[in-house]
Amino acid sequence: MKTVTSVKALREVLSAVDSTGIGLVPTMGALHAGHRSLVERARRENATVVVSVFVNPTQFNDKNDLRNYPRTPEADCALLEAAGADVVFMPSVEEMYPVPDLRQYDFGRIDKVMEGATRPGHFNGVAQVVSKLFAMVQPARAYFGEKDFQQIAVVKSMVAQSGFPLEIVECGIVRGDDGLALSSRNALLDAAHRAAAPDICRALRLGAERAAGMTPAELADFVTRETERSGLLEVIYFQSVDALTMQQVAAWDESERIQGCIAVQAGAVRLIDNIRIK
Amino acid sequence: MKTVTSVKALREVLSAVDSTGIGLVPTMGALHAGHRSLVERARRENATVVVSVFVNPTQFNDKNDLRNYPRTPEADCALLEAAGADVVFMPSVEEMYPVPDLRQYDFGRIDKVMEGATRPGHFNGVAQVVSKLFAMVQPARAYFGEKDFQQIAVVKSMVAQSGFPLEIVECGIVRGDDGLALSSRNALLDAAHRAAAPDICRALRLGAERAAGMTPAELADFVTRETERSGLLEVIYFQSVDALTMQQVAAWDESERIQGCIAVQAGAVRLIDNIRIK
Repeated sequence: MKTVTSVKALREVLSAVDSTGIGLVPTMGALHAGHRSLVERARRENATVVVSVFVNPTQFNDKNDLRNYPRTPEADCALLEAAGADVVFMPSVEEMYPVPDLRQYDFGRIDKVMEGATRPGHFNGVAQVVSKLFAMVQPARAYFGEKDFQQIAVVKSMVAQSGFPLEIVECGIVRGDDGLALSSRNALLDAAHRAAAPDICRALRLGAERAAGMTPAELADFVTRETERSGLLEVIYFQSVDALTMQQVAAWDESERIQGCIAVQAGAVRLIDNIRIK
Repeated sequence: MKTVTSVKALREVLSAVDSTGIGLVPTMGALHAGHRSLVERARRENATVVVSVFVNPTQFNDKNDLRNYPRTPEADCALLEAAGADVVFMPSVEEMYPVPDLRQYDFGRIDKVMEGATRPGHFNGVAQVVSKLFAMVQPARAYFGEKDFQQIAVVKSMVAQSGFPLEIVECGIVRGDDGLALSSRNALLDAAHRAAAPDICRALRLGAERAAGMTPAELADFVTRETERSGLLEVIYFQSVDALTMQQVAAWDESERIQGCIAVQAGAVRLIDNIRIK
């Protein structure tokens, strides 16, 4: 496994390999078994696996969140080596942003709801950094986890608008034994909130089971109540949305493919999760 | 020489070649000796030469200009074959814009003057299409003619913001025997305006020779008078600008590298040209 920190070194390594066989897993580090499953899938489907590890400042609307975001570069490299990555790209902020990135994306209605509505600028920053990584790595396939469900829709729109000739591969959520969706932010939970956090998944699963007997509005009330039962978690939103447009449905027959998406404040930590409803 | 019209076919052809040896010449077709010189230079400097031929609608602020823009695909292919191109990419508008491209670029002061000030939206469209071509072709080098002097500054800024790992190669203006800068739009000039058009270059050359004895403002008056002497040409602007920032200088010692840039209305046709002053 080669670790590179500059675009120049990255291009030198990648110019020697078949460009149709490059799979990219973009990450912000603090890697866990969810990331590992992405890398393992990329390993199975590509001759060359590139993993980027970069905490992207432009996608943090909250500077405290950026400051507190966990950083574990040595452990990340060990996990990536074990998972079979070929190249780890760990650039500095200056390497990724030699000049200010002033590009403004417009994703129509996709980013006006949920994470986009509650984290202003977040998805524009995601699109900026992912588009840079695609320009630099020139992958044939890029792997994203469905925990960030809305992010995948944003990235797909960015790709279609930008003309990148690559495939976005969506990978299912990896959960702990207690159901909690794996997230680098879980490491920031205190003991009490960590103990309560599996209520999120439990509420989603219960909600998905019982959804047919409720309206989407009733389901939102139900999932919120179930999630908040410990008194420690606060639901920021729960929405049943069309899986392509991210727009809320008012009835189950409004869409063929509906996902229930939730954001939760767990003490100082903001968590998201989602589940297929239809 | 292979001609491809889809991104898929383009990638199939290019995935078989060394990506460090791809040179791209982006054009809007109606090719002339100026384009040919770009292709010939790319031929000397790259193992694989790709030329794109695409009249990009998003960079036309004037729909009549878009409708009237000359289109000569058969002659273009003959010229490109003779100049040694390997791949010609001639996509449809639908192939380049499968979804509306809503990306908004910000180039600071670079695109607020000259062409940017007189052609609203033009440079945003240029940046959109050039960034798409870079994403699709993944060239190591891309060739641009200095006739579109401000465009090169815009493209360089787009590249720096977007992270494309490539070199922008600036190529000198190619002129006819009478000095007129070669342009696809020259073909649209009527006989009288065609006869008057060499006054543009003559005025620029005379101005560059005598600039040291004048202020930038006096030079602008001088070049305008000389350009307009036939009564057929109308100067839209003449500005002496810093070659990096595109900002007007008020005195020659304000910058190390100054270019005199002109736009002229010649009947129904808008022409541009420029010359090095310092």
